[in-house]
Amino acid sequence: MSRFWSPAIQSLVPYTPGEQPQVEGLIKLNTNENPYPPAPAVEAVLRNFDTERLRLYPDPECLALKQALADNAGLTHDQVFVGNGSDEVLALTFMALLRQQQPILLPETTYSFYNVYIDLFDIDARHIPLTDQYRIDLEAYSGENGGIIFANPNAPTGISIDLKTISALLERNTDSVVVVDEAYVDFGAQSATQLVNHYPNLLVVQTFSKSRSLAGMRVGFAFGHPQLIEALERVKNSFNSYPLDMLAQQTAIAALQDETYFDQSIQRIIDTRTWTTTKLESLGFEVLPSHTNFVFTRHPDIAATELMQYLRDNKILVRHFTKPGIDNHLRISIGTDEEMQALISCLKSYPGI
Amino acid sequence: MSRFWSPAIQSLVPYTPGEQPQVEGLIKLNTNENPYPPAPAVEAVLRNFDTERLRLYPDPECLALKQALADNAGLTHDQVFVGNGSDEVLALTFMALLRQQQPILLPETTYSFYNVYIDLFDIDARHIPLTDQYRIDLEAYSGENGGIIFANPNAPTGISIDLKTISALLERNTDSVVVVDEAYVDFGAQSATQLVNHYPNLLVVQTFSKSRSLAGMRVGFAFGHPQLIEALERVKNSFNSYPLDMLAQQTAIAALQDETYFDQSIQRIIDTRTWTTTKLESLGFEVLPSHTNFVFTRHPDIAATELMQYLRDNKILVRHFTKPGIDNHLRISIGTDEEMQALISCLKSYPGI
Repeated sequence: MSRFWSPAIQSLVPYTPGEQPQVEGLIKLNTNENPYPPAPAVEAVLRNFDTERLRLYPDPECLALKQALADNAGLTHDQVFVGNGSDEVLALTFMALLRQQQPILLPETTYSFYNVYIDLFDIDARHIPLTDQYRIDLEAYSGENGGIIFANPNAPTGISIDLKTISALLERNTDSVVVVDEAYVDFGAQSATQLVNHYPNLLVVQTFSKSRSLAGMRVGFAFGHPQLIEALERVKNSFNSYPLDMLAQQTAIAALQDETYFDQSIQRIIDTRTWTTTKLESLGFEVLPSHTNFVFTRHPDIAATELMQYLRDNKILVRHFTKPGIDNHLRISIGTDEEMQALISCLKSYPGI
Repeated sequence: MSRFWSPAIQSLVPYTPGEQPQVEGLIKLNTNENPYPPAPAVEAVLRNFDTERLRLYPDPECLALKQALADNAGLTHDQVFVGNGSDEVLALTFMALLRQQQPILLPETTYSFYNVYIDLFDIDARHIPLTDQYRIDLEAYSGENGGIIFANPNAPTGISIDLKTISALLERNTDSVVVVDEAYVDFGAQSATQLVNHYPNLLVVQTFSKSRSLAGMRVGFAFGHPQLIEALERVKNSFNSYPLDMLAQQTAIAALQDETYFDQSIQRIIDTRTWTTTKLESLGFEVLPSHTNFVFTRHPDIAATELMQYLRDNKILVRHFTKPGIDNHLRISIGTDEEMQALISCLKSYPGI
């Protein structure tokens, strides 16, 4: 701390991303990265890009990318916002839409960055516990509020909510914004994108980092009513006009256009998730039903921190959260078949499993 | 506007970047882009990059880039912050360091994004007029304050302040942060970077967008005391952990390493600026002394808006600001020799010049 800091930041507790060790030979199952490369068209962008153009500013409106996303979703480009990863989209969403008089509602256990934004922007919030099955109970999201945000599927549990339940919430909650963070939706859950034309208060946030294998390029986006999008644009253009560089825009467009490749890599990850779940259960683990590219699991007899350390000693990284209620679980990203076989073998060799 | 917007954003007036028309054949002298391509090593990054790695998150600390910047400046990596363009660095600086009890001090005429941040973060500010020679008078920046920010060289005037005057300010003003925005410093002004080890309250902000020809990649940075850098890191990690994608980090490192190419393109731009200034003066224009890659100029007899329109009709874009006091000036970026010859020919053909 220093006397030169703005008073408001002195108590901030920043988000802690999963480790990104620059070490070779690790099996990295700690940050939910896709084990497969981005679509081949992405490589073509890098090889053919006219480097001289980098002297120019990128399109601050990202119109080509917005149009590609709109076409893909059956929406119009003014229903699309793009940002530097879904984290930036979420940060701008908190600023633009969720700083209200009434408290916002969100799950007590969810993506931990939400609480960082709540602190950063001094937002009043009411946290609603998960059920004892680790599920978000949308029935409990009621009463006057300044907005509702939840992840579907939720993190780090991996459990999804069906569209009917989300529609019911939107029918009930018409006076404040409902933000559905769908970072993991492509791995088997139902997207609320198809509800965007029906509810002017619905914002759906997605990312290229997981299902499109472009975590390295930082592209996220949101779908919503043009007036919600305009709010995001205003704040974005009051903060940083050009958060997406030329290559981020171009590689995202390329990744979006190869649907066959997309479907195939999703299916491979779902198949590997099914295999991993079965194997973990056969070793005595409890595994929550996942619609994501990770599983959230605990062993009834062995502390999660001990298992994490054992895996780490064997060069396998997984993620652990110290939050009470989930502090005996591990979040394990779905890697390649070989990586998950190595995980299962390693766990099998743990004394007592 | 919509009832779903956060109340605080309803009165925001976002920054207006210079136009980025997607039209061929324009001579674009409106956004201070470098007319020359980035260093050849940048192209090699794109051609050789292992695309498969894009499935992974980039290094959120940007350590290799920080180290390269530190080496270049004779500093250590903990004295370096990097962000998504200097605009993001500035936005985070306003949040982390300039939200204080006392009003901050800044020039009345300067980079117009500063006032957008002041509104966005609800900061109290005192604006100090330029001298009648359009100069920043640092003597006038005195008394208790919550911080001082100015651009050196200033925008859109192009006029620089010497290092002795900045040192004198830092000697006087020891209780609040002094931010020197050096977006254009490489084009002939003196950088305050060499003062960073002497003043714990000095933050120097620079960018790869101008002198390094990487506007398309969005990389900015700041040098300062490790405690100032830590404040920026805290806010950055509470907003968006990974604002620089892998290619932004790699191309920036590549651009930094070719000093010969850098020196040569800077010198070409300075030579062209000298030629342009002489020619404009010979046509009756008044040109402020520039240490940037643009000139700020007015014709005593012809309205700037008319000249701008005439140039535009001839496919040459320049920038005009409606702010009183500078609303009869044009800001003209320094392009290639051919582009500036076209500009001068076009102006010569204007009736009355």
